[in-house]
Amino acid sequence: AILSILVVATAAALNLQIWISLAIVVLIVIIAISYQQTIHAYPSGGGSYIVASENLGETAGLFAGAALLIDYILTVSVSVAGGVVAITSALPALHPYLIPISLAFTGLVAFANLRGVRESGALFAVPTYGFILAMVAMIAWGGYKAVVGGPVHQEVIADHTQTLTHISLFLVLRAFAAGCTALTGIEAVSNGVQAFRAPESKNAAKTLRAMALILSVLFLGIGLIAMRLPVMSLLPTSDKHYTTLASQIASYSFGANSIGFYVVQAFTALILILAANTAFADFPRLASLIARDGYLPRYLGRQGDKLVFHNGIVVLAIASSALIVVFKGELDQLLPLYAIGVFTAFTLSQIGMVRHWQKTQERGWQRSIAINGLGAILCFIVLGIIAYTKFLEGAWLVMVLLPIIYAIFIAIKKRYAAISAQLAVPSDMPHATQHMTLLLVPRVHRGIISALDYARQLRGETQAIHVTINEKALPELMRQWDRVGEGVELRVLPSPYRSLIQPILEYVDVLTSSHPEMTITVVVAEAVSSKWYQRFLTESVAQQLKVALNRRRNVVVANTRYFLN
Amino acid sequence: AILSILVVATAAALNLQIWISLAIVVLIVIIAISYQQTIHAYPSGGGSYIVASENLGETAGLFAGAALLIDYILTVSVSVAGGVVAITSALPALHPYLIPISLAFTGLVAFANLRGVRESGALFAVPTYGFILAMVAMIAWGGYKAVVGGPVHQEVIADHTQTLTHISLFLVLRAFAAGCTALTGIEAVSNGVQAFRAPESKNAAKTLRAMALILSVLFLGIGLIAMRLPVMSLLPTSDKHYTTLASQIASYSFGANSIGFYVVQAFTALILILAANTAFADFPRLASLIARDGYLPRYLGRQGDKLVFHNGIVVLAIASSALIVVFKGELDQLLPLYAIGVFTAFTLSQIGMVRHWQKTQERGWQRSIAINGLGAILCFIVLGIIAYTKFLEGAWLVMVLLPIIYAIFIAIKKRYAAISAQLAVPSDMPHATQHMTLLLVPRVHRGIISALDYARQLRGETQAIHVTINEKALPELMRQWDRVGEGVELRVLPSPYRSLIQPILEYVDVLTSSHPEMTITVVVAEAVSSKWYQRFLTESVAQQLKVALNRRRNVVVANTRYFLN
Repeated sequence: AILSILVVATAAALNLQIWISLAIVVLIVIIAISYQQTIHAYPSGGGSYIVASENLGETAGLFAGAALLIDYILTVSVSVAGGVVAITSALPALHPYLIPISLAFTGLVAFANLRGVRESGALFAVPTYGFILAMVAMIAWGGYKAVVGGPVHQEVIADHTQTLTHISLFLVLRAFAAGCTALTGIEAVSNGVQAFRAPESKNAAKTLRAMALILSVLFLGIGLIAMRLPVMSLLPTSDKHYTTLASQIASYSFGANSIGFYVVQAFTALILILAANTAFADFPRLASLIARDGYLPRYLGRQGDKLVFHNGIVVLAIASSALIVVFKGELDQLLPLYAIGVFTAFTLSQIGMVRHWQKTQERGWQRSIAINGLGAILCFIVLGIIAYTKFLEGAWLVMVLLPIIYAIFIAIKKRYAAISAQLAVPSDMPHATQHMTLLLVPRVHRGIISALDYARQLRGETQAIHVTINEKALPELMRQWDRVGEGVELRVLPSPYRSLIQPILEYVDVLTSSHPEMTITVVVAEAVSSKWYQRFLTESVAQQLKVALNRRRNVVVANTRYFLN
Repeated sequence: AILSILVVATAAALNLQIWISLAIVVLIVIIAISYQQTIHAYPSGGGSYIVASENLGETAGLFAGAALLIDYILTVSVSVAGGVVAITSALPALHPYLIPISLAFTGLVAFANLRGVRESGALFAVPTYGFILAMVAMIAWGGYKAVVGGPVHQEVIADHTQTLTHISLFLVLRAFAAGCTALTGIEAVSNGVQAFRAPESKNAAKTLRAMALILSVLFLGIGLIAMRLPVMSLLPTSDKHYTTLASQIASYSFGANSIGFYVVQAFTALILILAANTAFADFPRLASLIARDGYLPRYLGRQGDKLVFHNGIVVLAIASSALIVVFKGELDQLLPLYAIGVFTAFTLSQIGMVRHWQKTQERGWQRSIAINGLGAILCFIVLGIIAYTKFLEGAWLVMVLLPIIYAIFIAIKKRYAAISAQLAVPSDMPHATQHMTLLLVPRVHRGIISALDYARQLRGETQAIHVTINEKALPELMRQWDRVGEGVELRVLPSPYRSLIQPILEYVDVLTSSHPEMTITVVVAEAVSSKWYQRFLTESVAQQLKVALNRRRNVVVANTRYFLN
């Protein structure tokens, strides 16, 4: 992506390219070292949210958290769109379908995550190693060609005859900002330390080093070879059938339409689309951290429960798809939004680490402060550059969203505090003293007998009630009840409008108005069908009753189950 | 609609029109008298389903029921499409939007029904009387003009210069079949006797007579005036900008583009679209009758419960919308489908009535048999005519659907029988002998104290359990519990993956494996928020637990509630 912008002005500024690549590599190395410190200091997961909130307080932590939540959404959009651009670089005929293809891939990754992350782990290893190998091979072969001065393939230049725009500091900064987005993987590692095999923090740090190394090599390699390409071609938005620079280089190295070219494109697409997967694991994880501190609905803290985890995945998929549609899948527009979030979080995290070392004064804390301080300053500079150069291009959106999300966090926290105050246990709390059980008897069968057994195990009186929906069946029902009802009275509630719920509500109201202290348990026997298509013959009366009884105090719905085969 | 076909061949067969109108009027009168008998014999609602199944047995009854269910769907499609055609007759510019407008109106009627039928009653009175008045005025004025021989307006003829197709018996029969569809309102009345004010059957019979009278007058009136229109214009499908015959006559009577013309069109549209409303009341009612006999999911029998009633409305709206889309809102295609269903039900019902009189031999039973017998024969003839003339045009669809729906009815009945057999109460049924209560304690607050009160009112041991999602909060929680827990042991379940559900499942499994006889009630305290937007901060853990515990025997989930303001 970094190359995509400089590329516009190559003829004049070809030499600049390599310096920017170098600057980014330096930044990568410093941030990687800096984050290695974080991982060791926070072995249970040291994302920016935790580091910032523990060391810099609530506000800094929540801004870091908000920035990262936005970023995970953008990670999905950017990775998927990038992957699909790699595909359309190889198959330009697909370019008009960029958005639908991107949405399909987003859905696919979301679906894979809904089905279970563990399976995905193995699935993702092959493309990752394949991609690294393919890129290294490409750079090696391209580098060899560049050194021996192999001829530039005609095809590469062919259809790119755009006038080159002027080179300026602004362009250079934009290029730098775009390139920095490659760094976000670092946050994913430090935030997800616990997802690694034991020893977690060691393995995480190892991964970080490997990532930094690979990124540096690829950046420098591509930067160097790019200098050899005579006319640069990735015109960010003007040329609608653009091909990525990586695909240009693949063309240069292996020859246009060679097998090597398609292998590079395929692995690039795969790795980018699967890269979206990290966000699908990280987004619910971060949300759960924030939720446990009470700034998001508390139940989101239960990341181990499918329902909660799934909610995160669905929200992420919808939000990132929306961004793809709104920004028409254009990487150039999505990247700065992404970078703002990352560098906000990075800066806060690094400053937090400086505070951390100040407080702990562990062995070598001065050195640690120096490293994290340098990281913080660099990140802040980059953040400033991106905010300045990309403000009108979309960075403003993130800068508006951040305080809004912060305000939502605070509002949720406040609401929970209000609830806690309301629910404080008073010293003179009245105790319920009476209990009775109502057993619903729609028909007489084994499931009802079990329910009767259950009802009789509860304290207090047990009453059986039958709501007459079908008068024809009533006499037989009463005969059967006499036989199996064990002396429990069966009260028949008429239902002129053939409602099951209404007569029960009315009866409960009569009971509670005469015994305000009494708690009533309504026992409902429900069928559990073994096959899905049989389920539409049964229903959850308990759930309907619960909803209907919603605002009535002292009524509890309990449901026993019986099993059908 | 009847006029729409004859119209094509008017030049040759203008005189036939009035005879067909007369034949239909005779049919209306005989069926109305015949149905009046049914209403008095079945004062609690004598739809074809009941009459046929009580007198002719299961198969006949189910076929009548299936025919009517299909018909209610078609009633909505036909009425709405007809109403929208009346609109496009007045405003031809809207004709291209026939389908979307029809779907919008279907949705509107469905929505009105979801909000409550009682409100709709008053809403529908004005258009009904308005329509009758407008039609009578139109016929009177047009009749006067026709008698004094007023000149035919140029505008009426203007853009209709199609070549007229040949007249044949086939065409006449088709016209007759189309006209017969006006009769379906009769079934609606006799099926919904109980919806009338007391004395129900008297009022229903009165309505029937009024309907028959109004229909007869309108039919004959329109038929007579149509004879005066020199070039007929409602070309069924070939002319895409067609106008209805009623609109032609309105043009003739009041003058094209006169206020009277637009008033007639407006009321026609209103009455037809609102006519769809009867189906929205009748469809769930019939489904509930069939459900109570066990041929549809039993819970559909509870027509008084919103959930059930709403299901019917939603199914009806979706099915009728689908038909409008498939048949592109063309009345000509929808009408025969509709007629097949009606006359199948009519014939079965009339034959059933003949059997009824044979059995009861009430006073004047021979006369009653004669009337119902004549009705049966006429209906059967009409059914044959429609099936023959419209088979390829769509009637086959209904004739295929009928046995399919019948088969579904029988399959459901069978499944219920199998369930009943499974659930027969064995003589040596084991009784659960032990009970214990698990109280979920996520935090300590007033709601939990109430839940503890409740749990202690159940028999057997009470245990409090806490699943550790947030370790930070644990020490404080345990301190609080010591203060308020009234000596109930708090068991802390660790949750390495931060799942709330999984540790509970595992603990329940441990308990039940060591005490297979024991029933466990899991008590969950749930928050009830007063405002909808506060609800997303709370959740139904009970429901999630219930789903998770789905296949575990001897575990009951009960939830107490506490209220937030």
